[in-house]
Amino acid sequence: MEPNRAALIGLDWGTSRLRAFLFDTRGVVLATNDRPWGVLSAPGGFAHAYHEIVGPWREAQPDLPALASGMIGSTEGWARAPYCACPAGPVELAAGVVTASTADGSVSVVPGVEQRGAAPDVMRGEETQIAGALALRSNLGACCTLVLPGTHSKWVDVRDGRIVTFTTYLTGELFAVLREHSILGRPARNAVHAGRGAAWDAFERGVHAAGESTARGIAPLLFRTRSLVLQGALQAEDSLDYLSGLLIGDEVRSASIAATTQLALIGEPALCERYCRALAMNGLDAPVIEAATPAGLWTIACRAGLVEAPTAHV
Amino acid sequence: MEPNRAALIGLDWGTSRLRAFLFDTRGVVLATNDRPWGVLSAPGGFAHAYHEIVGPWREAQPDLPALASGMIGSTEGWARAPYCACPAGPVELAAGVVTASTADGSVSVVPGVEQRGAAPDVMRGEETQIAGALALRSNLGACCTLVLPGTHSKWVDVRDGRIVTFTTYLTGELFAVLREHSILGRPARNAVHAGRGAAWDAFERGVHAAGESTARGIAPLLFRTRSLVLQGALQAEDSLDYLSGLLIGDEVRSASIAATTQLALIGEPALCERYCRALAMNGLDAPVIEAATPAGLWTIACRAGLVEAPTAHV
Repeated sequence: MEPNRAALIGLDWGTSRLRAFLFDTRGVVLATNDRPWGVLSAPGGFAHAYHEIVGPWREAQPDLPALASGMIGSTEGWARAPYCACPAGPVELAAGVVTASTADGSVSVVPGVEQRGAAPDVMRGEETQIAGALALRSNLGACCTLVLPGTHSKWVDVRDGRIVTFTTYLTGELFAVLREHSILGRPARNAVHAGRGAAWDAFERGVHAAGESTARGIAPLLFRTRSLVLQGALQAEDSLDYLSGLLIGDEVRSASIAATTQLALIGEPALCERYCRALAMNGLDAPVIEAATPAGLWTIACRAGLVEAPTAHV
Repeated sequence: MEPNRAALIGLDWGTSRLRAFLFDTRGVVLATNDRPWGVLSAPGGFAHAYHEIVGPWREAQPDLPALASGMIGSTEGWARAPYCACPAGPVELAAGVVTASTADGSVSVVPGVEQRGAAPDVMRGEETQIAGALALRSNLGACCTLVLPGTHSKWVDVRDGRIVTFTTYLTGELFAVLREHSILGRPARNAVHAGRGAAWDAFERGVHAAGESTARGIAPLLFRTRSLVLQGALQAEDSLDYLSGLLIGDEVRSASIAATTQLALIGEPALCERYCRALAMNGLDAPVIEAATPAGLWTIACRAGLVEAPTAHV
């Protein structure tokens, strides 16, 4: 195998964003393109967006295989890849890959994962990040809980390298709709100073309040974001950080993780910092795993036979 | 006192709606006007809206006193009426009434009620409904919990005719922002059949799920609204009723009312029906009290000396 020779196109194609990775024969990322062309916002359709983002790579090397993960495999996406049932790891995901023919060659799509029964749940995209995280940190594979903060946060229990159970929290989307559209967001929308950092005091007050409300849950706390501002006990410009603390604090409380659990975080650094702080306030510690998505695309592509897995060097 | 002679103008002036009542000397409502001229949407300002809605009544009888309750007394309203501290009943509310001079005579405004300390909370408008409900149902005054479903639902503990503690739940606004702006509302927004009734099965499934999730709270349940639809286990057009059940069910669970508590509901009939069902699923029964707002305006106006209280007929 020649290092630096391109071997695979990987796509992380979610609801609001499209990221493309060009891998060499060892799985090293040679180049990345990032566009706001999500499944709900791809200009000119999926084929056009795909052609635009990978065109130059395919011109140079027309036979490159491509593997995509995320909402692109949903019913609203380009090629439907039915959910894979839990427990699911790289072997099951590779077996569920669906390949579509396009004007720019074939594109393979990673399936999402679903949990049926008493706690129905679904994921698309996170399964690839998890496969990548476990490839990067082999010590976690035996038994851990991975936390993926985001629009729809996932808490995922892993055993023997496979996803066994998981829970989705609407935290990120809930925060966004309350910030943009509810009375709770109004004071801060009016007071916001662009570029200011997080008000960690307010955030931690929110986490603390959520932790104290154990039996009653978060329902009686949300409106407090407004009452505190009206009573002069919370600055308007800090109120969204208090709300963020309430929501993330309630998520951490609800997940009720044992102190002995091996934890790790996968996600945007700024969001992971919030989760790190909320976890620490609950006596929990979680390292952040970076670059999980390209590692996952590469791992699944190897398993699916789209590329030849490099032999380990000893 | 002459029956049918007008004696008082009452205004229920909230965020999105203005209702005016014309009372006779016994407190009977002679006429009502209802406009979508809330505090955030009054066309041409408050003075203009007031003139338009009560003009003909004041032309016929220019010396009519007027009493208003609701957000009109907030900092964003017409005349700021500072909050009254708990415990608060008609005596305290009447003592806190603020009177403003306007081009159309003076208008008195009922103060809101606030709770300070460990569980900060505020209300504006509900204190008047509560005064009315207790005037209409004297058996409740000694000890009860009043539930006022709405954008910001209130659960209010009453002792000896006064509000002693209360909790606000964001339930109504949360439902509205999730329906309009989140992924949970999307399937139903696309599938909605105008004029169809509530899908009570779906609603009750939501209430049941919220009740079962005791320790973990609602956080892990919200996304289930989507997972169930994706897995074909919930009809898209029923999904908002499931979500409504989750949110109202969590509110009822969180309030954790003892079976011996005397309960009553005050609010819109369609919303009260949802609460009645959720309460019944939790072994609780609550009659609905109607016309609490005009009864409260009348009660407070009598206490404040704006009108002469009619002597009781025995």
